[in-house]
Amino acid sequence: MKSFLYPKINPPSFTWVRPESGKVDKVHEWIQPITALTDPERSKDTEVVILGVPLSRSSISASGASEFPEAFRRSWKSFATYNLDDDVDLSELTALDAGDVPMHVTNIQKCHQNIIDAAAAVQQHFSNPTVCGIGGDHSITAMMVKGMHLENPDEKIGILQFDTHFDLRDMLDNGPSNGTPMRNLIESGVVEGSNMYNIGMHGFYNTKDLKQYADEKGVNYFTLRAARKKGIEETVQKCLEELSSKVDIIYLTVDMDVLDIAYAPGVPASTPGGMTTEELLEGVLAAGRHPKVKAMDIVCLDPQKDTKVQPTVKLGTHVFLTFLTGVMLRQSASN
Amino acid sequence: MKSFLYPKINPPSFTWVRPESGKVDKVHEWIQPITALTDPERSKDTEVVILGVPLSRSSISASGASEFPEAFRRSWKSFATYNLDDDVDLSELTALDAGDVPMHVTNIQKCHQNIIDAAAAVQQHFSNPTVCGIGGDHSITAMMVKGMHLENPDEKIGILQFDTHFDLRDMLDNGPSNGTPMRNLIESGVVEGSNMYNIGMHGFYNTKDLKQYADEKGVNYFTLRAARKKGIEETVQKCLEELSSKVDIIYLTVDMDVLDIAYAPGVPASTPGGMTTEELLEGVLAAGRHPKVKAMDIVCLDPQKDTKVQPTVKLGTHVFLTFLTGVMLRQSASN
Amino acid sequence: MKSFLYPKINPPSFTWVRPESGKVDKVHEWIQPITALTDPERSKDTEVVILGVPLSRSSISASGASEFPEAFRRSWKSFATYNLDDDVDLSELTALDAGDVPMHVTNIQKCHQNIIDAAAAVQQHFSNPTVCGIGGDHSITAMMVKGMHLENPDEKIGILQFDTHFDLRDMLDNGPSNGTPMRNLIESGVVEGSNMYNIGMHGFYNTKDLKQYADEKGVNYFTLRAARKKGIEETVQKCLEELSSKVDIIYLTVDMDVLDIAYAPGVPASTPGGMTTEELLEGVLAAGRHPKVKAMDIVCLDPQKDTKVQPTVKLGTHVFLTFLTGVMLRQSASN
Amino acid sequence: MKSFLYPKINPPSFTWVRPESGKVDKVHEWIQPITALTDPERSKDTEVVILGVPLSRSSISASGASEFPEAFRRSWKSFATYNLDDDVDLSELTALDAGDVPMHVTNIQKCHQNIIDAAAAVQQHFSNPTVCGIGGDHSITAMMVKGMHLENPDEKIGILQFDTHFDLRDMLDNGPSNGTPMRNLIESGVVEGSNMYNIGMHGFYNTKDLKQYADEKGVNYFTLRAARKKGIEETVQKCLEELSSKVDIIYLTVDMDVLDIAYAPGVPASTPGGMTTEELLEGVLAAGRHPKVKAMDIVCLDPQKDTKVQPTVKLGTHVFLTFLTGVMLRQSASN
Amino acid sequence: MKSFLYPKINPPSFTWVRPESGKVDKVHEWIQPITALTDPERSKDTEVVILGVPLSRSSISASGASEFPEAFRRSWKSFATYNLDDDVDLSELTALDAGDVPMHVTNIQKCHQNIIDAAAAVQQHFSNPTVCGIGGDHSITAMMVKGMHLENPDEKIGILQFDTHFDLRDMLDNGPSNGTPMRNLIESGVVEGSNMYNIGMHGFYNTKDLKQYADEKGVNYFTLRAARKKGIEETVQKCLEELSSKVDIIYLTVDMDVLDIAYAPGVPASTPGGMTTEELLEGVLAAGRHPKVKAMDIVCLDPQKDTKVQPTVKLGTHVFLTFLTGVMLRQSASN
Amino acid sequence: MKSFLYPKINPPSFTWVRPESGKVDKVHEWIQPITALTDPERSKDTEVVILGVPLSRSSISASGASEFPEAFRRSWKSFATYNLDDDVDLSELTALDAGDVPMHVTNIQKCHQNIIDAAAAVQQHFSNPTVCGIGGDHSITAMMVKGMHLENPDEKIGILQFDTHFDLRDMLDNGPSNGTPMRNLIESGVVEGSNMYNIGMHGFYNTKDLKQYADEKGVNYFTLRAARKKGIEETVQKCLEELSSKVDIIYLTVDMDVLDIAYAPGVPASTPGGMTTEELLEGVLAAGRHPKVKAMDIVCLDPQKDTKVQPTVKLGTHVFLTFLTGVMLRQSASN
Repeated sequence: MKSFLYPKINPPSFTWVRPESGKVDKVHEWIQPITALTDPERSKDTEVVILGVPLSRSSISASGASEFPEAFRRSWKSFATYNLDDDVDLSELTALDAGDVPMHVTNIQKCHQNIIDAAAAVQQHFSNPTVCGIGGDHSITAMMVKGMHLENPDEKIGILQFDTHFDLRDMLDNGPSNGTPMRNLIESGVVEGSNMYNIGMHGFYNTKDLKQYADEKGVNYFTLRAARKKGIEETVQKCLEELSSKVDIIYLTVDMDVLDIAYAPGVPASTPGGMTTEELLEGVLAAGRHPKVKAMDIVCLDPQKDTKVQPTVKLGTHVFLTFLTGVMLRQSASN
Repeated sequence: MKSFLYPKINPPSFTWVRPESGKVDKVHEWIQPITALTDPERSKDTEVVILGVPLSRSSISASGASEFPEAFRRSWKSFATYNLDDDVDLSELTALDAGDVPMHVTNIQKCHQNIIDAAAAVQQHFSNPTVCGIGGDHSITAMMVKGMHLENPDEKIGILQFDTHFDLRDMLDNGPSNGTPMRNLIESGVVEGSNMYNIGMHGFYNTKDLKQYADEKGVNYFTLRAARKKGIEETVQKCLEELSSKVDIIYLTVDMDVLDIAYAPGVPASTPGGMTTEELLEGVLAAGRHPKVKAMDIVCLDPQKDTKVQPTVKLGTHVFLTFLTGVMLRQSASN
Repeated sequence: MKSFLYPKINPPSFTWVRPESGKVDKVHEWIQPITALTDPERSKDTEVVILGVPLSRSSISASGASEFPEAFRRSWKSFATYNLDDDVDLSELTALDAGDVPMHVTNIQKCHQNIIDAAAAVQQHFSNPTVCGIGGDHSITAMMVKGMHLENPDEKIGILQFDTHFDLRDMLDNGPSNGTPMRNLIESGVVEGSNMYNIGMHGFYNTKDLKQYADEKGVNYFTLRAARKKGIEETVQKCLEELSSKVDIIYLTVDMDVLDIAYAPGVPASTPGGMTTEELLEGVLAAGRHPKVKAMDIVCLDPQKDTKVQPTVKLGTHVFLTFLTGVMLRQSASN
Repeated sequence: MKSFLYPKINPPSFTWVRPESGKVDKVHEWIQPITALTDPERSKDTEVVILGVPLSRSSISASGASEFPEAFRRSWKSFATYNLDDDVDLSELTALDAGDVPMHVTNIQKCHQNIIDAAAAVQQHFSNPTVCGIGGDHSITAMMVKGMHLENPDEKIGILQFDTHFDLRDMLDNGPSNGTPMRNLIESGVVEGSNMYNIGMHGFYNTKDLKQYADEKGVNYFTLRAARKKGIEETVQKCLEELSSKVDIIYLTVDMDVLDIAYAPGVPASTPGGMTTEELLEGVLAAGRHPKVKAMDIVCLDPQKDTKVQPTVKLGTHVFLTFLTGVMLRQSASN
Repeated sequence: MKSFLYPKINPPSFTWVRPESGKVDKVHEWIQPITALTDPERSKDTEVVILGVPLSRSSISASGASEFPEAFRRSWKSFATYNLDDDVDLSELTALDAGDVPMHVTNIQKCHQNIIDAAAAVQQHFSNPTVCGIGGDHSITAMMVKGMHLENPDEKIGILQFDTHFDLRDMLDNGPSNGTPMRNLIESGVVEGSNMYNIGMHGFYNTKDLKQYADEKGVNYFTLRAARKKGIEETVQKCLEELSSKVDIIYLTVDMDVLDIAYAPGVPASTPGGMTTEELLEGVLAAGRHPKVKAMDIVCLDPQKDTKVQPTVKLGTHVFLTFLTGVMLRQSASN
Repeated sequence: MKSFLYPKINPPSFTWVRPESGKVDKVHEWIQPITALTDPERSKDTEVVILGVPLSRSSISASGASEFPEAFRRSWKSFATYNLDDDVDLSELTALDAGDVPMHVTNIQKCHQNIIDAAAAVQQHFSNPTVCGIGGDHSITAMMVKGMHLENPDEKIGILQFDTHFDLRDMLDNGPSNGTPMRNLIESGVVEGSNMYNIGMHGFYNTKDLKQYADEKGVNYFTLRAARKKGIEETVQKCLEELSSKVDIIYLTVDMDVLDIAYAPGVPASTPGGMTTEELLEGVLAAGRHPKVKAMDIVCLDPQKDTKVQPTVKLGTHVFLTFLTGVMLRQSASN
């Protein structure tokens, strides 16, 4: 089976066999693989589009984050579509798994171009999707945003970032790696530094140079300590308010290394003293509720390093579902 | 050596060799195995009775929770009887390890009947015990309560539950598994839905059907978010107050999957965004202090999945000791 | 999608998405899931039929062997259909994944009956299949053979077993567990003790009682030491020769615990001093070549206990492919 | 290469090769190994002196804490010298890695004497150092303090301790093990019980005897529950205030077992219900800011038990850097 | 309960509860703990005496080998007393678990003296025991032999050693560590170098100095390569023949690091290219059959480093049972 | 410190601090880092040159093989220079650690060019070195050979390969990945197919296409089964004999995935049924003894996936030392 987005986007490598009954309780019963659709037209109004971005050879440190899209899909079986906290059922959203961006083994530039093309293709095909990019490492964010920009050149894009790092390293050193996405976007003129908001940095994980570059470019950031003091939800809301006065579209990027390493054994770059799971979920829910947040990604989660019961993979999926809960609450509110 | 409760209850498979001195500092020096007692009569007034319930083949997912009773006993060596927080010494309570319920390899119905029989036998032999059931998976709770009910048919039983799930699945689907104990008790008429209080649910771990069934039956529940807002201790107290106006005996069941998976790598069903250890201990202590709480169990902890230094096994034992601290504080208060 | 063998056999829970090209290089591109077939009739001549048997709650020790059928299917991606050693391409065989036997959570007797029914259904539907049962624990073997017998009551069945144990425990003790399949078959009259040949036992893993029962019933066995002295291949050939003079059909059962524990970290019952991988593969290849070997199973492999790079899961799949290599070599020889 | 402190202190076993540029961004580019210095005189004013103390055969339980000094040095590469939270760059401090105290395999008394000698040698050589002892198990604290006392006999020493235990066990039982350092110091008259402040104890990890001994000797302690109620920072400040009115020098000892075991899988003696990482860092920062805190150690962290991504080793290093951040903030404040 | 060998030997820390039936199938039902015996006199004729020697703080590298005696006893449950390979039932031997040598935390010299005393006490009490020392690290071997010598000063002792190392390091460097036992025995005059036979060395794991010392003292050794060429069994027999012409008693010491590291993940000093399990068992069986082999030990097995399914602990126990099989075969042969 | 080969080759990132005595017993005391040399001229005659090649982002599957050069150097401490099997001391060879090839994060082509340049630089600077390339993944082999060829264009190069795969994949698909090195060399005309000898393939790990390509190009290969039948040493000798009649220089490449996965948990591409450690060491020793073998590499060993006691890293180092043993034996023989 191939998808109508092929060859820009490969269909997912496997699909869950649906139960006869058609009753939807679990996430794997809800999200349709693109290969299951016979009619491309019918798919245009899909509300949520998932795009796997299995690239991590662009990571500074050796990474298996490329395995997350597959692990993510496998994990669906363990999650209900119903969210008890907020009494919403995600299965009321239409959601499509568009598959994975094709990757090349030794040509990283080509991989990056493929991501741009795929992200653009999604914008082109779907009328008003909320796009969820499943990384991969953080280098993909710059490409996802560029692809989005390509199709919507007149819309200003802002970024809300959960991260332990600035990701503003100089691309001259090592090209568009997972340490550079934000700088990449600034330097390419796609996003202005002042339209970037980073929450969660702390400790000894950014050199002084980067901080100075951030200040120069007007990048906004709230350390975890500052965000905790103000309240995570309140901090997110403040960022979104400021952003939404300046941009048309907000892109949410969740670098899982923002988490405390005790909560994220499958994220080698996570650190002691990072966010708790509760805090991250609180932040992501708040972001999902904002009407301008039209895309998000989850990056730097390496399932090969996760411990036996896969706490980090589960958390990655929980982040995704929590974001969509925000989307549903926003839609309900607007109805 | 056999126990006077044999064959309903097997003696523990091993016993700690006591030091000559007789001085009690550690838990393994305090809790007496039932085989060491020559006089059944003398044991009648035992305040705390431990019952191992090594059954987990009734779990929906493959589980080694049947290994917890043995791991629990081995861990005693690492715990003092003295609780510094509350300045009480648990060794002032009399405590007896009654051993394990006999299990059958391929007849789960027989296993369940054996648990009922053993729970009843404990009620029969001891005059006023606080019973601690060490699971095993959650299916055992229905049987423990039924056994208790068998011996005390006139006493109304209520349940306080820490759990990420309702455990109200339909028994027609797969019999009395670890997903059904609460429904089992409702349908058998042993406990009314309105006398069940569940604390700790959150996220995407219960289907909508179950929520609707819960509402129908009047099952009470506080999501983790709600409980945190009110305070864990305050939530527990409120539940106990309500319960104690309606029932004679309160049974506390601690499904360890209520915990955040970062705190419980040995509980595969635990989830991201669950309770912290601190919160669970706070809740269990409050429960132990209530005079109507006459039995408890700890379930769904799989030592085979725990990490090297056994954080989850230790936490299971800590939960048990914290509950008994509540019991002692209650007794001191009532003296 | 459902299968024409449903409800006796559930379709596999997921399917690999096929490449457009239709070119077959890897195992997951070769073996067709039953759900992909629109025409049941066309499937009748399938040469190889895979049947998942995800049952391990019947294990004496807590086991996750029920997870092997899914892990087995996932592993296909890492294996070519071409066997360089023997210069054969397995893709010349037609192979069908019939899916999994439906299981019940708390009624093990029902699970066992379902296996019998499914095994019979396979015999009924396919004209002359080589059946590969993917366990699950060893209790399934008795059921697989019974199902086969049900459809072919006039054909005498013999068994070739690789195992560290007799599996002749008394069913009165704990029912039809993973310790009893051979006794089960003897006592039910389906297979005579003298038509059972066991290779690989050693050391301290069988009680004397069992040896005496084996001798009484005429069960044949070669300790690993004896088999090594004679040669593994030669031992297998000798067993098959003897068997084939006495029976119509030979069933091969591979209890992965026959392996040395260094080679099988995912088989908790494997032991120090067991078979090497090389020896087992040599034995299985020889078995596959024999024309009367019409069915086989692989049991007691617990993927949850396997180490990070999954050596045991890979070995399980390798055993399966090696057996089929034998089948192909036999067919080529007979052409 | 040997160091001018040799043979009292061995040089570190390996050194990072410095980049040509001389630019300092990361911790391994900042801290100079003592072997890199050709002029001992020039080193006298070093502000921070690191002393590895690789001894853990004195632990009650088998421990690999002796491996922490090497793991600690290896981890430097992952940490920037710049602290974003407080906008300070640690590289403005001069810091020297003095190497490791020489240890003997079978003579623990000699190991302890070597620590005393090395600690004294540091005091002797450097004019006003902040000393960071990298353990090793907790038995080293008594020796570090004794060595300091030897060179400064007229200065009264007080201790601030983060710990889950009193460490007041009777030395008559098993000599100066990791269970005795505080008693050792009391009994040897080097530190008075009333000048000891312990923060973080809780639960069932100290016998009643020890509590009584602590009370007798006037040892001050705040349980974790009490410290949380008051605020960790406030508790530390209160302890330091009291201490600083009574003593000349304050020695900070961080037993990593004060942490919740979920945060510290590489500390086997850590417990459920202990401190979070955030709390410990808050406490250590406050301690570092106090002008009388002139020495600290980090003990009981066993890298051999840590999980794959080394959360505990990273946390140990983070604690060290956070302490130095306190030192820098204090110096800035005093300028 | 205390033992009549107390205080020289502590009773085992725990005991298995015996089944009512008295029927012996498994090892834990066979070996009696010394505490269960009411009559010291009756015990004098015990054929096999087990002595736990939980010391590993004398190891050069951090080791948890002190935990093996407890892990060894726990593993008994998984082993039958019946050996199918040789058709013997070990339960025909009388076997007693004498418990553990008392250890001191910080005085290693005292630990070593305690081992000497305990080994002597065993010789004193029992009339003609086969002694099995369960280590602990290799330093204990020198002490075990010295204790034996103390009670039998007129009997010449020889040593058969399976090891990857000479264990002839200079005691002046670091005292009687696990690198020195053979040198210790030579220098103390208890065993002559020419009465030592070492099998299994290979590769890059001994410095040239040690080889020269060995040659000087006439220590005999067969590299693994040489032993394989000749045959392991034949090599052992040749060693025993030579030895038995020169000494009265042969002591077998099995350093588990002789194994290939793939077979012994719980022995950190094991190496690539070492013995297979099969080879070691073959060698140990041959040793057990020799009438002059009156004592043995198993050392350097660290259960804390073993992988999940405990292959190394199981192998340690298998070595012990295989040795006793040799003893039984010898006795049968001599009857 | 920088090296005279900089910037083509970075110095090693750390160096072991040498003991004062200058006595060489262990490998880390023997191999000099290039930064320790003040006189480039003096280094020209170095017999053994080590070149780290930390590249694995060119791997088809996510790999951390880039971490092996550092892990390799760290492991030196555990190895003596003396080889007991062959009674040779490697420290009689002069050996230099030239450091690591500089790598780029996102430009793999540049990484590959850097390897070519570095390999050429080694040939240029040293007069007659035996070069040991420490990978990295298998893509590096093509570059190492190309670099060598660049400096010695008139010398014909042949290859001896231990591998489970042909590594002859089409470069058009995914560029010069770890699946292509042999094809790369054939297509670039640097090595003829008929001058390639591959030992160790087996099972289902090569597609039929690749076998056909190999046959077309005259690539020679011995399956593991064939090599075992003939003898590993004899097979290697036969290959070398044939090769040496055709080429001037032989390059040995050891893809660690040739090993059975039980021996190599840190090589995810290793397979069930592969070589044992003993067999590989036997083969490598034989290769080292041949005078035309002037270079070798070790690839595809991923230390991040290794188990706790690092069996695979140790094995990698053992392979290297065994190769050098061959070199020494050859030199001794030729003197």
